[in-house]
Amino acid sequence: MSSQKKSWINIPDDSDFPLENIPFGIIQKGENPPEPATRIGDTAVSLSALCDYGYFDDLGIDDLTVFYQPVLNGFISLGKAKTSAVRKRIRELFEEGNESLKSNGDAVNAALFPANKVKNLMPVYVGDYTDFYSSIEHATNVGKMFRDPDNALLPNWRHIPVGYHGRSSSIVVSGTGIHRPKGQTNPDNGPKPVFGPTKQLDFELEMAFVTGKETELGESIPVEKAEEYIFGMVIFNDLSARDIQKWEYVPLGPFLSKNFGSVVSPWILTLEALEPFRVKGPEQKPEVLPYLRVSGKRNIDINLEVALKPENENEETVVCRSNFKYMYWNMSQQLAHQTVNGCNIRVGDMYASGTISGHEPGSYGSMLELTWRGTKPLRLAGGNTRKFIEDNDIVTMRAFCKKDGLRIGFGECTTKILPAK
Amino acid sequence: MSSQKKSWINIPDDSDFPLENIPFGIIQKGENPPEPATRIGDTAVSLSALCDYGYFDDLGIDDLTVFYQPVLNGFISLGKAKTSAVRKRIRELFEEGNESLKSNGDAVNAALFPANKVKNLMPVYVGDYTDFYSSIEHATNVGKMFRDPDNALLPNWRHIPVGYHGRSSSIVVSGTGIHRPKGQTNPDNGPKPVFGPTKQLDFELEMAFVTGKETELGESIPVEKAEEYIFGMVIFNDLSARDIQKWEYVPLGPFLSKNFGSVVSPWILTLEALEPFRVKGPEQKPEVLPYLRVSGKRNIDINLEVALKPENENEETVVCRSNFKYMYWNMSQQLAHQTVNGCNIRVGDMYASGTISGHEPGSYGSMLELTWRGTKPLRLAGGNTRKFIEDNDIVTMRAFCKKDGLRIGFGECTTKILPAK
Repeated sequence: MSSQKKSWINIPDDSDFPLENIPFGIIQKGENPPEPATRIGDTAVSLSALCDYGYFDDLGIDDLTVFYQPVLNGFISLGKAKTSAVRKRIRELFEEGNESLKSNGDAVNAALFPANKVKNLMPVYVGDYTDFYSSIEHATNVGKMFRDPDNALLPNWRHIPVGYHGRSSSIVVSGTGIHRPKGQTNPDNGPKPVFGPTKQLDFELEMAFVTGKETELGESIPVEKAEEYIFGMVIFNDLSARDIQKWEYVPLGPFLSKNFGSVVSPWILTLEALEPFRVKGPEQKPEVLPYLRVSGKRNIDINLEVALKPENENEETVVCRSNFKYMYWNMSQQLAHQTVNGCNIRVGDMYASGTISGHEPGSYGSMLELTWRGTKPLRLAGGNTRKFIEDNDIVTMRAFCKKDGLRIGFGECTTKILPAK
Repeated sequence: MSSQKKSWINIPDDSDFPLENIPFGIIQKGENPPEPATRIGDTAVSLSALCDYGYFDDLGIDDLTVFYQPVLNGFISLGKAKTSAVRKRIRELFEEGNESLKSNGDAVNAALFPANKVKNLMPVYVGDYTDFYSSIEHATNVGKMFRDPDNALLPNWRHIPVGYHGRSSSIVVSGTGIHRPKGQTNPDNGPKPVFGPTKQLDFELEMAFVTGKETELGESIPVEKAEEYIFGMVIFNDLSARDIQKWEYVPLGPFLSKNFGSVVSPWILTLEALEPFRVKGPEQKPEVLPYLRVSGKRNIDINLEVALKPENENEETVVCRSNFKYMYWNMSQQLAHQTVNGCNIRVGDMYASGTISGHEPGSYGSMLELTWRGTKPLRLAGGNTRKFIEDNDIVTMRAFCKKDGLRIGFGECTTKILPAK
């Protein structure tokens, strides 16, 4: 039984994209220019076309060119009042009983397309990308494996939402294949490293938020106001090469082990759409410093899963089920921390959560943890086993919220690992 | 005695900007739109104005709008053949005896301005910024101070041009003041960190190169071809908060200790202009992996200095003299490494060298090293002492090449440290 609003277009009951969602993305039809769009059920809706037909004329938006740009940065920069009004308008247009769009055959033809007949492009131009490390379960697992099982968490971890800068240029949209990276490794800790394709290619199950409002250099965002600067969220697959990472990461952090390709889901879900699924996060002990103190429901209950499908198997195997609500550090704290030193943010920046692992082994968000560094290979549905990702494997991440019969989701974030070039 | 070519405009003998230089930058006159420009002697020359008067019409440049854009990314994207032709044209126009521009009073009035009467803006939009760690003297000094004096260099250092991703949004042009950052530190390694303005604010003397040609994701740049992708260079002051860095940087590297403001010199010097100053770099032992092997003169002899001037002193004190030629890893190796895993690059990316220290204490490129972690304070000309940078101190970096009577320089990269907000 669904509590979802009814529409005059078909929305399957279990769709990630009911009228309560109205996410934003960029689509391309054939060789046409890219267009801002939303998705409802299995239908992609062009905002360019809706704008052509005047449906956004009375929303007080002075610069309508944002509905024709190849990335959403301009649209997002309108601010939440305006983008929220656009969401509301779109929802009204598609509600059962509303004839405004439905009765305009030309507009319907220009704006509506089967979602599987359009290409999704990167929704935003990413100025800067930060990757946090905010799951205590993940940080503990990694600490146990690589450092000290008895002191797995480093002393700073419960005080700082640890993060580092990543590469913006190599963030790509779901559906893009990524070549297995080559690099230096030192498998035997010998005097000489070796060069070649990584033998320990991994996914990292993450969520990322996209900023919607810029700050000046020198300005800090108070933790209580951080959500005003967050436009929405996507699924984020932070592909990682563990053997390269192990050799390179001391003392300045991960570099080539992480920047060969990160994959995001195509539709940005607004914080507004995710509002009904807010929950409290884990208790933070010891108490954090004042600039990180925030109350209320700052986590979001988002079900996550990762599926793996080798080329020669017919069906995928779900290898991990986790939840975004496990995050120790929430998005408000991450953004307050990122800017506490005056670091400026821009519209379209991405801030990824870090691998989201739960308590149980089946909820670990990386192959590294799921196979415990390759020591416990996973058996897949079709009979193959995996320590890490192999060539031509398809990795698919999914994320959705569900409560009181309402389901809102992110769709899929998928990539195929191509052989090293 | 100068071997510099003569011009019909005045070029002081010791100028960083003779006709052999012709760097590129962005200037702004009053409230006018930003304009691409070059600098000759003490004169800023607007490329927009030269283009207005048709001086670039016959260079085979289809898209002349690049001479009117607020950043140089479009101009640089023309490719080296075109940008080199523009340099050559500008040089010809200003050579003694050439009347083409000189005799056109309107064009001269429109294009030429005293350099100190225009504002310099960021020369490029920086897509991604990488900071390397390529000075063996600096890495050794840091290793001695923070890790093991007997094993100062980590095992990977002689095999990998170690680097990490930094923040693009907070890279600003020379002349911009930077507020002292606030953040978490743990001075006593106690159970609780403290929050406040950094007490160990430092500069890092670096040079950075700017890429001029993009690659596709999955593509690698062979080390022998790397210079084709490098457009030019700037001075780079990688401001750092040592106490914040110490507490935050394990295990994922520097983050808030580095991203509150980095300052670059306003004029990008082309590799072409720097050609006469090429030298061989230090011998690399053990031999590097094949993808990093490169022959010829890959280093550049660039004299570097850093001066400090407290607010209450009348004159600055040069606290460091170093040279870019000391770099263990050269730019070709850095770029080959950056892309060996398929990481894509874009026009306008910045790649900083890491702190450039020489062998002698007076050549160390940071206060951390110059004062050996604050244990040997520096005495300044006006009588003040400094362990680290204090509020209202002005830090100025300079860089120039000199050979056979020819001097080519970068001008200044300067910033004033403002009190914490």
